[in-house]
Amino acid sequence: MLKAKVYVTIKQSVLDPQGVAVQGALHSIGYKEVESLRIGKYMELELNTDNRDEAEQRVKEMCEKLLANTVVENYRYELEG
Amino acid sequence: MLKAKVYVTIKQSVLDPQGVAVQGALHSIGYKEVESLRIGKYMELELNTDNRDEAEQRVKEMCEKLLANTVVENYRYELEG
Repeated sequence: MLKAKVYVTIKQSVLDPQGVAVQGALHSIGYKEVESLRIGKYMELELNTDNRDEAEQRVKEMCEKLLANTVVENYRYELEG
Repeated sequence: MLKAKVYVTIKQSVLDPQGVAVQGALHSIGYKEVESLRIGKYMELELNTDNRDEAEQRVKEMCEKLLANTVVENYRYELEG
């Protein structure tokens, strides 16, 4: 059993209105030091396999095909266990 | 300038319907090895301060007050830079 942690972030050139809204909310309750805030996704997958090389390849495919929209998002992942 | 990375995850005892849906989608395109999938949030904050101890304390407060719903979510964070 392997565990994959996938991080999907919005590309720097793409607007993140959700992040802007949360940043505004933090400012309004006194956290003025927040210069920027961007929100992405964090996914934990449990994989029923012990073949690390194959898992690496297949998680990359899952990201490309479904977990990230590579037009506007970047992704990275780590395998554990 | 410090950078904070905040990870917000749904508690183990709480259902994650979005994760279940994505897991189903992965199964349907052939990734049957995905035993479980849970989706959380990943936030990157730029903080206009160099006081690491204070920043640590204030990011914790931001998580408690706004970034995470501690009834159903866990959070952790890292400071960099």
